[in-house]
Amino acid sequence: MTKRKICVVITARPSYSRIKSALVAIKRHSKLELQLVVAGSALLGRYGNAVDYIVNDGFKVDEKVFMVLEGENPTAMAKTTGLGVMELSNVFYKLKPDAVVTIADRFETIATSIAAAYQNIPLVHIQGGEVTGNIDEKVRHANTKLADIHLVASEDARNRVIKLGENPEMVINTGCPSIDLAKEVLQNSALDFNPITKYGGVGNEIFWKEGYLIVMQHPVTNEYKQAKKDVTETLIAIDSLDIPTFWFWPNVDSGSDGTSSGIRTYRELKQPKNIRFFKNMEPNDFLKLLVNSKCLIGNSSVGIRECSYLGVPVVNIGSRQYRRQRGENVLDVIYDKEQIINGIKECLKFKIIAKGTIYGDGTAGIKIADALASLPLHYHKTIEY
Amino acid sequence: MTKRKICVVITARPSYSRIKSALVAIKRHSKLELQLVVAGSALLGRYGNAVDYIVNDGFKVDEKVFMVLEGENPTAMAKTTGLGVMELSNVFYKLKPDAVVTIADRFETIATSIAAAYQNIPLVHIQGGEVTGNIDEKVRHANTKLADIHLVASEDARNRVIKLGENPEMVINTGCPSIDLAKEVLQNSALDFNPITKYGGVGNEIFWKEGYLIVMQHPVTNEYKQAKKDVTETLIAIDSLDIPTFWFWPNVDSGSDGTSSGIRTYRELKQPKNIRFFKNMEPNDFLKLLVNSKCLIGNSSVGIRECSYLGVPVVNIGSRQYRRQRGENVLDVIYDKEQIINGIKECLKFKIIAKGTIYGDGTAGIKIADALASLPLHYHKTIEY
Amino acid sequence: MTKRKICVVITARPSYSRIKSALVAIKRHSKLELQLVVAGSALLGRYGNAVDYIVNDGFKVDEKVFMVLEGENPTAMAKTTGLGVMELSNVFYKLKPDAVVTIADRFETIATSIAAAYQNIPLVHIQGGEVTGNIDEKVRHANTKLADIHLVASEDARNRVIKLGENPEMVINTGCPSIDLAKEVLQNSALDFNPITKYGGVGNEIFWKEGYLIVMQHPVTNEYKQAKKDVTETLIAIDSLDIPTFWFWPNVDSGSDGTSSGIRTYRELKQPKNIRFFKNMEPNDFLKLLVNSKCLIGNSSVGIRECSYLGVPVVNIGSRQYRRQRGENVLDVIYDKEQIINGIKECLKFKIIAKGTIYGDGTAGIKIADALASLPLHYHKTIEY
Amino acid sequence: MTKRKICVVITARPSYSRIKSALVAIKRHSKLELQLVVAGSALLGRYGNAVDYIVNDGFKVDEKVFMVLEGENPTAMAKTTGLGVMELSNVFYKLKPDAVVTIADRFETIATSIAAAYQNIPLVHIQGGEVTGNIDEKVRHANTKLADIHLVASEDARNRVIKLGENPEMVINTGCPSIDLAKEVLQNSALDFNPITKYGGVGNEIFWKEGYLIVMQHPVTNEYKQAKKDVTETLIAIDSLDIPTFWFWPNVDSGSDGTSSGIRTYRELKQPKNIRFFKNMEPNDFLKLLVNSKCLIGNSSVGIRECSYLGVPVVNIGSRQYRRQRGENVLDVIYDKEQIINGIKECLKFKIIAKGTIYGDGTAGIKIADALASLPLHYHKTIEY
Repeated sequence: MTKRKICVVITARPSYSRIKSALVAIKRHSKLELQLVVAGSALLGRYGNAVDYIVNDGFKVDEKVFMVLEGENPTAMAKTTGLGVMELSNVFYKLKPDAVVTIADRFETIATSIAAAYQNIPLVHIQGGEVTGNIDEKVRHANTKLADIHLVASEDARNRVIKLGENPEMVINTGCPSIDLAKEVLQNSALDFNPITKYGGVGNEIFWKEGYLIVMQHPVTNEYKQAKKDVTETLIAIDSLDIPTFWFWPNVDSGSDGTSSGIRTYRELKQPKNIRFFKNMEPNDFLKLLVNSKCLIGNSSVGIRECSYLGVPVVNIGSRQYRRQRGENVLDVIYDKEQIINGIKECLKFKIIAKGTIYGDGTAGIKIADALASLPLHYHKTIEY
Repeated sequence: MTKRKICVVITARPSYSRIKSALVAIKRHSKLELQLVVAGSALLGRYGNAVDYIVNDGFKVDEKVFMVLEGENPTAMAKTTGLGVMELSNVFYKLKPDAVVTIADRFETIATSIAAAYQNIPLVHIQGGEVTGNIDEKVRHANTKLADIHLVASEDARNRVIKLGENPEMVINTGCPSIDLAKEVLQNSALDFNPITKYGGVGNEIFWKEGYLIVMQHPVTNEYKQAKKDVTETLIAIDSLDIPTFWFWPNVDSGSDGTSSGIRTYRELKQPKNIRFFKNMEPNDFLKLLVNSKCLIGNSSVGIRECSYLGVPVVNIGSRQYRRQRGENVLDVIYDKEQIINGIKECLKFKIIAKGTIYGDGTAGIKIADALASLPLHYHKTIEY
Repeated sequence: MTKRKICVVITARPSYSRIKSALVAIKRHSKLELQLVVAGSALLGRYGNAVDYIVNDGFKVDEKVFMVLEGENPTAMAKTTGLGVMELSNVFYKLKPDAVVTIADRFETIATSIAAAYQNIPLVHIQGGEVTGNIDEKVRHANTKLADIHLVASEDARNRVIKLGENPEMVINTGCPSIDLAKEVLQNSALDFNPITKYGGVGNEIFWKEGYLIVMQHPVTNEYKQAKKDVTETLIAIDSLDIPTFWFWPNVDSGSDGTSSGIRTYRELKQPKNIRFFKNMEPNDFLKLLVNSKCLIGNSSVGIRECSYLGVPVVNIGSRQYRRQRGENVLDVIYDKEQIINGIKECLKFKIIAKGTIYGDGTAGIKIADALASLPLHYHKTIEY
Repeated sequence: MTKRKICVVITARPSYSRIKSALVAIKRHSKLELQLVVAGSALLGRYGNAVDYIVNDGFKVDEKVFMVLEGENPTAMAKTTGLGVMELSNVFYKLKPDAVVTIADRFETIATSIAAAYQNIPLVHIQGGEVTGNIDEKVRHANTKLADIHLVASEDARNRVIKLGENPEMVINTGCPSIDLAKEVLQNSALDFNPITKYGGVGNEIFWKEGYLIVMQHPVTNEYKQAKKDVTETLIAIDSLDIPTFWFWPNVDSGSDGTSSGIRTYRELKQPKNIRFFKNMEPNDFLKLLVNSKCLIGNSSVGIRECSYLGVPVVNIGSRQYRRQRGENVLDVIYDKEQIINGIKECLKFKIIAKGTIYGDGTAGIKIADALASLPLHYHKTIEY
């Protein structure tokens, strides 16, 4: 029997956590063959070198696609996407996969979708059907309309994809693979490494053993010019609280330099005593750090997904996670230092946070692989209404 | 008062007829300034040099975008689109329009959508909400999800776009501009030129004054390898009927050479006596030819739209117009010479065909311009459900 | 022992004849491994589908690179080249050759040179050091300055490359592989097939057995607008002589459509009785046709190289072969029907033409392979003066 | 009278200093019209935002071209160049200049050359004919072979370009515009600003008023992996001398991150007391800093050109300036901390350095403008031998 060749395209560090357990399951599945393409910022040191983690985890990278165009404006985002279409078209032409998997809603994911759909390759979209409200929103639903199979992360998302006119038989709620990693970590959640020794980071030595915060704040693409201002609110808030804090640099998009520059400027001028800055950690280590933290601050979807499952309180800043289904662990505030400070103080009072399975019960990877092995593969569809 | 700068991108000959009356209305509108971009196959002699007609009609072309990659496979289609994203990103970066208009559902139209949406320029999609069933189907609805304003051609289409989660206030049924041209022609419909003298064409002299057929058959993108076979059925059918026929070459997509090669081969081998082949005519002349014809054969959407309004019988072949709302003038057949012959014979019996206004009453251009002048321009939206 | 991986890039039909015997020799060489890349117009049906001949000759194509941008202007030539750089960079990144071979001086060959040189891969340039006088001239010498090893076709060429500041030890006169094919054909030169039966072509039946002409006229890139006018002079001349003629369509460059359109127009209007038009023939068949012809007319370098070795008279039109070293078989004329007619008449008087070995003695392929196996491979050089 | 439209393409910060006085002269010239294109790293904050200086100096930027592809390998360099060809082809197609100016020998400058030459636009190459010995060497001479007019910076260079087969009438020794800036500065050379107050920089406060060193060390493209190691030798040497030092970050090429990362690592680990790091200064300020310094260390061509004219001693490290004609102010050493230390000590002993005019007497800008206004503009050339 010929195995189905499943080509997964990873374009950024965060996407890897969103798919890792599925990659493992695909690789192990008797009816599937994994073709792995690593592209875009996932290849770049500036954005955390996701490719190194991928290789260390034992995956073979079939193709590397350099496609990130430098530039401090949205034009570069658009052109990166166009370049991605061209490059990925070549890749699929050569790999001849039976299906291509595109992940979620980053701007460049539509390049994968176009390159596959236009070449009549069945397209599988992971994590469609969610709601956010900026360019990601447009990209996500456009991916849905280009895709033939939809493997979504929640019931809410499944219903939305069906409402978008997709065939319900082709929309499966598998949960989110990021929850699989969280589940694994919960089984052995002690912080068994020293983050500073292992990962370095920059900034002062911080004494985190008595409890610490984590910050992950990404630029919101459509508010590009404000990125520097926005992050500064958070920096002031965290600095004033004076609790040891692990701060993670943002990933790439056109606002990236605004946020990064905000952080760099603040560091030079204020030399915050109790914040240490990190580029990246292995997902497992990151989850251990997270589950042992007092609170996550920022606008990362990690706060909505993993933290719900792990029961970690979250101060979610701004509109980036707008209308994403969330658990009781999340407290929403705007880009304002007072609100951020108060939000964190509120969270620190919590004793126990209810854990939730909105985004899955930790078996998403296996469910994704099973769906890829068993669903019929078409590239021809018509809207249902 | 500053005029709104409306940037319209035309990527192919047929798209021009779909937008021409709107271009006129935009140009004349006191609150609008037209920025016209001509791209892709609309610039190429092989596909009918639409740009010449555009210029002859008195429009100023602000930018020309060469983006068609040669190649006899779907990979070229995908890469053309990627190149289009890159090129159009530059164009919008420079023209700084207040809104960009993308037309319908050809594969490369998504390049316009991405280049605009990713640069935070409000995107207007013309003629969304229809149903066909191949790659155009995916592209059309993806365009809808990337667009902020939807100017559709029928009530059916309007309802569908709203079901796709768009804000009903941003979905306007303007009718199709192609009907505007048809309306004008009906006011003076005599065939007042000799098509062969005026346009040449290749093949035998045909004596069309006593009545003639018209054929327009495009390759269906997803059935690329069959294009040659499919067109040959039509060629045999038409040749055997021996009625004078004006045959129009297909426009570009990756099957283009299949269909064209089918036609060329048949011509060399069979030298059909009563068929003359044309690349293109001015839209007005084409409509006059159409309204005076006995029957249109093929798979062009002209059969569904203009012919409904004009009351011209149509033998519609194959799946290309699948599920598009149609009037009583259309008779559907498959790619089979017998069915095509019988369909044509059936049509030739008709005396009077009921005219319809499914796709508008001839005022679409003005309605489009008014909508562009009055609707609020945003680039931020969220799905309605 | 590891074999040296030699990556040869073929971008057009005529380049294949220029390298074929070397490909055979590389493939057979115990110290070499052939990596074959077919790119550009060599992949396209419109330009004779060179790739099919390559595959039929038993070569494995490692990569196909679609890079030809459509357009009727020099801009398309430039952009095709840029696209080629991007695509070929990927290809070399993946194939990791020990050396890359770029052939002669077509505009897109510099893409191969840049993609190799910039990635620190030793670059071998075949057939540098010649003189022509248009864009090819610039491209050829720029290729020389980017290349590390030069395998040239004549002593004249060798001296010129050395004058350009290259290390004489890295400049080898191997002769031209096209002569190798000619040598083979001379050993069995009877016209043992019927060109019309085997290749079809279009136009009238012609009765060629009593003697015939061959025409190969390419557009001269820098005189793009004149291409149509130029070819018409030749068409009138040939038509008036009324000798059976095999006419070969030009290969791609931006003037291509000018020349092709000139031919098409003339055919429609004048229906020349004694000319039959061909897209392409297998190189061997073409050489047999050539050696048995009365005269070659046009501006192809075949007239300068192969015809010198074969002893076929040539009427060489215009500036395309300007200053290329030539034998006694060549008679130069300008784009003027009278001069062309008189030139042909002159040639038809010749009884015996002295054969020459200016461009090699038929062992170029083996010499090229030997050079590739034995020369030191560097990518670092400095001008000699 | 129509003015000649001269399109100058600046792709990097250092190129701007190499052309600035010529831009001024072109702008002022009664027979010339300046079209200014800023491209590549000259647009990016990471590489010093040259575009801001250009605008501040009163120039109007006609087109901005984003073309730098991210990636930590030479493949990105190649693809950036390919993208540059595509983008610049569009730009020249639109601007329709009478001549295009490409500057010196950075890898991406060949994109300008191809885009112009292939579109039959006369190409002017500034600063050809020099010798270095890595990829710049190949690019420079390839630019020469693509160019029609050569405006060189020294007699040595002029002779070399002529030896390359160029028409001597088209090769003019104008001197280097960078010397024009140096001449201006010499007229008022007091260090009338505080570099740290004005430009910030990072690192410790340094007390430079009693004398200081300057370091500019760029990665050598072909020794990419060594960049980090190489720069560390210099860091150790400078740190051990403990003289106040202004250190300038390298500009972009694929080794950039190696060098930058070397610097960052050293800073984190060793926190060198007496070094302050700067991204960039206005050229005028930089020259003032330079003329007042004790010694320039590194591998910048500033050491060869400006420092010769200014009489500043230079410790030139490694092969980057290999075989470039140099004055008595230059002391060559290899990448070795001992040699660097000894070199600097040697230089510090010098009292007076002989000034030289090898690279011009400070009138290059005017000479360039005059040449552009008076030389015949052709795009057709043939090698002289």
